[in-house]
Amino acid sequence: MHLSIIFVDAALELVPKSLWGHPSVRATAARRGKKPGEILLDKSLHYHAMKRLPFSHKRGRPDILHVCLLLALSSILNKEGLLRVYVETLEKQWITINPETRLPRNYNRFVGLMEQLLIYGKVPPGASDPLMKVERVSSLREKFAELGISRVYLLSEKGKLIKARRLAEEIVHEKSPAVLIGCFPRGDVSEEVQNSADEIVAIAPYSLDAWAVTCRIISSVEDVVEARGERLENPGKG
Amino acid sequence: MHLSIIFVDAALELVPKSLWGHPSVRATAARRGKKPGEILLDKSLHYHAMKRLPFSHKRGRPDILHVCLLLALSSILNKEGLLRVYVETLEKQWITINPETRLPRNYNRFVGLMEQLLIYGKVPPGASDPLMKVERVSSLREKFAELGISRVYLLSEKGKLIKARRLAEEIVHEKSPAVLIGCFPRGDVSEEVQNSADEIVAIAPYSLDAWAVTCRIISSVEDVVEARGERLENPGKG
Repeated sequence: MHLSIIFVDAALELVPKSLWGHPSVRATAARRGKKPGEILLDKSLHYHAMKRLPFSHKRGRPDILHVCLLLALSSILNKEGLLRVYVETLEKQWITINPETRLPRNYNRFVGLMEQLLIYGKVPPGASDPLMKVERVSSLREKFAELGISRVYLLSEKGKLIKARRLAEEIVHEKSPAVLIGCFPRGDVSEEVQNSADEIVAIAPYSLDAWAVTCRIISSVEDVVEARGERLENPGKG
Repeated sequence: MHLSIIFVDAALELVPKSLWGHPSVRATAARRGKKPGEILLDKSLHYHAMKRLPFSHKRGRPDILHVCLLLALSSILNKEGLLRVYVETLEKQWITINPETRLPRNYNRFVGLMEQLLIYGKVPPGASDPLMKVERVSSLREKFAELGISRVYLLSEKGKLIKARRLAEEIVHEKSPAVLIGCFPRGDVSEEVQNSADEIVAIAPYSLDAWAVTCRIISSVEDVVEARGERLENPGKG
C-alpha cells in the first residue's frame, strides 16, 4: 500500500494581475523587495484588496497548506516510505513533492519558497531532480490514472459519515489509494474535484480544519499499518 | 476521561534583555513599532543574536508551538470537550488555554497574540475570563496535583517504545491522564519535566517533530474513544 494525500483546491497563488496596483499589495511587495506579481496572495495582508476577487472566500490562505504539508511530511507514514504528497491548487496547478523535502518550519520562509516554486516551476530552480515541481493539470482523473491510483476518497463534511479507523482499514486494503483533502478556508470543493472522487466521506458530523483531517487520516492509517505488523522496526516490542 | 496535553519546554519567550541591543532584534522591533523587550525571540529572525544565549538550540521557535496548538484546538477531541491544553515554557511560565480559543491561523498574528499574552499575562488583556492566561509555576508535580491529573506520560524518543494505539488505550483507561510533548527544536527535555513524568514512552524509534507526536496521540485517543462508542453523534452509522 502506498497512500497518496492530495491537497485539493489549495488556496495558493501569486497575486493576480488585477490586484497589482492595490496599496496593500504594493506595500507587501515593496517591503520584501519584490514585484507585486512575485508574491503570494495572503488574506492576512491583502484582505481589502481581495474583496474584488471572484471566489475570494476560498483564496489567499497558504498558511493552511503549510500546516498540512508539515504534518504529512513529518509523519511516520512518510518516514516509512508509504506516503506520496501532492497539491492541486485552485488555479489547477499540480505540485509534486519529493518525500524527503524538509519544508521550512517558519511560515515566512515557506511563503518565500512557494513563491520561488510558482515563479520558476520548481525548487531549487536549477535542479534536474527538484524537491518540488509544478505542472498544469488539465484533468484530475487522467492524472490519477497516470499515478496508478486505485481508489479516490474525498474528505468532505457533506460525505457519508464513517469512523476514521474504519476508513483507514478500507484505505489500507487498496493497493494505491488517494485521499483528497481541501486546503481552503470555507466553501465546497470544486465540481471537478468532486467528480474525480470514487467516494465522498466525512469523519465528523461537522466541518474540520484541513490539518485536523490530515492528522486523523494519516494517524489512523499508521495505526492500521502497525496493527497489521507491516512495519519492521522493533519486532517483538511495543 | 479528560486528556490534558501539556506542551513542555516550549520555545516561547520575549527577547531577553541581553539581546535588546543586537542589530537584528532592534531591526525587528523597529519594523513592528515595538520595543525590543516586547517581541518574541524568533530564530528565523535572530539567529546570529541567539548564538550568545545559553541553551540557544532549544529556544526561539514559537512556530513549533503554533502548529501544535492549532492541531490540538482543532481536533475532534477538543470539540467533543475531552481535551485540556496547557503550555509550560522553558522559562517556567505556565499557560492555560480556554478550549474554545480560536487561535490565529496566520503565524505572524499568532506571534502578536503571544507577545500580548507574555506582556500582559492574559489575553484579552482586560478580560476577567481570558482565553489564555500565564502564571509562574514553581513545581510541575504540584501543578499536576492541583489539576487532578492521575497519570503523566512524557513522550520522548528515549522512552520505552510502544505502539501509539496501545498507548492510547492506556491513556483512555485513566480518569485524568496527561501527555507531555516537548515543543522545542532539538535536545532533551529538562530534568524537571522528566522527573515529573510517571512514564516515559516513545511511539517511534526515531525523533519526531512535536506536531507529528501531537497529531498521533490525539488521533489514536480519538480512535479508541470512538471504538468504545463513547461519542453520541451518528448512532448506528459509520
